[in-house]
Amino acid sequence: MKVYIIGIGLIGGSFAKDLKRDFPDWEIRGVDRNKDHLKEAEEIGIIDASAEFSRISEADLVILAIPVDASLKVLPQVLDHINENCLVIDAGSTKKELCRVVEKHANRRNFLAAHPIAGTEFSGPSAAINDLYKNKTNIICEVEKTAFKLQERAMEIFKKLGMRIRYMDPDAHDRHIAYVSHLSHISAFMLGKTVLEKEKNERDIFDLAGSGFASTVRLAKSSPAMWAPIFQQNKFNILETLDEYILNLKHFRDLIKNDQFEEVFNEMEKTNHIKDVLNGITENEKLKL
Amino acid sequence: MKVYIIGIGLIGGSFAKDLKRDFPDWEIRGVDRNKDHLKEAEEIGIIDASAEFSRISEADLVILAIPVDASLKVLPQVLDHINENCLVIDAGSTKKELCRVVEKHANRRNFLAAHPIAGTEFSGPSAAINDLYKNKTNIICEVEKTAFKLQERAMEIFKKLGMRIRYMDPDAHDRHIAYVSHLSHISAFMLGKTVLEKEKNERDIFDLAGSGFASTVRLAKSSPAMWAPIFQQNKFNILETLDEYILNLKHFRDLIKNDQFEEVFNEMEKTNHIKDVLNGITENEKLKL
Repeated sequence: MKVYIIGIGLIGGSFAKDLKRDFPDWEIRGVDRNKDHLKEAEEIGIIDASAEFSRISEADLVILAIPVDASLKVLPQVLDHINENCLVIDAGSTKKELCRVVEKHANRRNFLAAHPIAGTEFSGPSAAINDLYKNKTNIICEVEKTAFKLQERAMEIFKKLGMRIRYMDPDAHDRHIAYVSHLSHISAFMLGKTVLEKEKNERDIFDLAGSGFASTVRLAKSSPAMWAPIFQQNKFNILETLDEYILNLKHFRDLIKNDQFEEVFNEMEKTNHIKDVLNGITENEKLKL
Repeated sequence: MKVYIIGIGLIGGSFAKDLKRDFPDWEIRGVDRNKDHLKEAEEIGIIDASAEFSRISEADLVILAIPVDASLKVLPQVLDHINENCLVIDAGSTKKELCRVVEKHANRRNFLAAHPIAGTEFSGPSAAINDLYKNKTNIICEVEKTAFKLQERAMEIFKKLGMRIRYMDPDAHDRHIAYVSHLSHISAFMLGKTVLEKEKNERDIFDLAGSGFASTVRLAKSSPAMWAPIFQQNKFNILETLDEYILNLKHFRDLIKNDQFEEVFNEMEKTNHIKDVLNGITENEKLKL
């Protein structure tokens, strides 16, 4: 089986590593616009060889792991050129636009729209790790539009990599993921910005920061090339979540300003319930499937 | 040596554990308003015995680890009743009010105002762990107001526990810590609130959350009883940081709304520099002193 991975960074590279381990006789080829990344991926052995996009018709499996704006252009081209038994999976963080763009494509049935909820704040081939997807949720959109045999092949792969499957329509996916992923990134980026700006005038401020700050701001290390297109494609859902977040912050600010500290306490106590939710996340990631 | 630890939760309990390990012949006594906590601390062996506040005059070392509003009342009472060679250390997250309240106390020289930048999102005696303070920064305020011999004793303890010392005046402490600690807590609490509110209408939203969300919202598990008084005491600095944070969020929101995604990219890229800062934090915590 010939696997073409388009975009050989954190996401694509981690797929490559697990596939190589779990299906040793599969041949993993990498395609990337960034020639340095491609060379690096070959050198550290993530891929068997680099490949040209023009030879994609020989692929049995294509994994698309590039920024979501690039996917809108590249996915139709992939579907134009694949052979009829090829399975194409994407791994992007937005699904509505992508599903729309290939809606009427003659080879729509070769495509499975997926979003593995997995990642780290690092990027590039050197960030690729084994078991990134183990015990993680993988959201599949419009599964009914993928050929049944190709669905089966995809599920076999996802199962082997240890993923838990959830089915959603692309609209609901984009709306929900705005809350539990996209908003966290914005909150972290803006927290980082606020503190960095302050540091210009107040030296050594970071000398005082501890692990709590590090945890809250961690996602501000993420790749802007990945995230700007995500915010663009999910603009309206993100604006809604962001407005609610800003409103909640303003309300909390006003409680502090007006010395309503009993209410400040209550707001925090109600939110403490997030413990149960977070334990759920941790449990899921621990669970053997 | 008799040690009285007032408030035997995460912070006080972790002091108790390390002191017991590093100075085995010291006698550790616990004082706590919460009798269940006191009993628990005794049962799990964090303290040698519980004690009454009325016997504090026999203490050689008092560690105050209670909510910062309680400290304003309890610290003067402690200073009223200690013997003349007793060292009193607090560990609260605000310093200005506390230093002001004991400014003219006859036994001010027995008190050392400290803030170990250490903690977890958990609370109570069961949250106490060894080495919580290892390789962490400990901010000392108004060191010159503490008797020289007692400074020495404090430094010996801090050194043994593996802490790195920074000296600051209480004003600067409260201003800086608003950015690198208090703001992170508010941002996490409000992120948690925003997503919890959404979940009321959209079921299973957390099923989609991954480790990124968990990391950003982690501090929302923190104790409201600890944090409401901190926000109260550091009100004006927190309002300033919170206003800047909200302004940055609004600006980012407007960039998205107006389709200025090149600027969205630039904002994130500039903030990526936080990587170096966070590496610094991690390095500090790793460093053997």
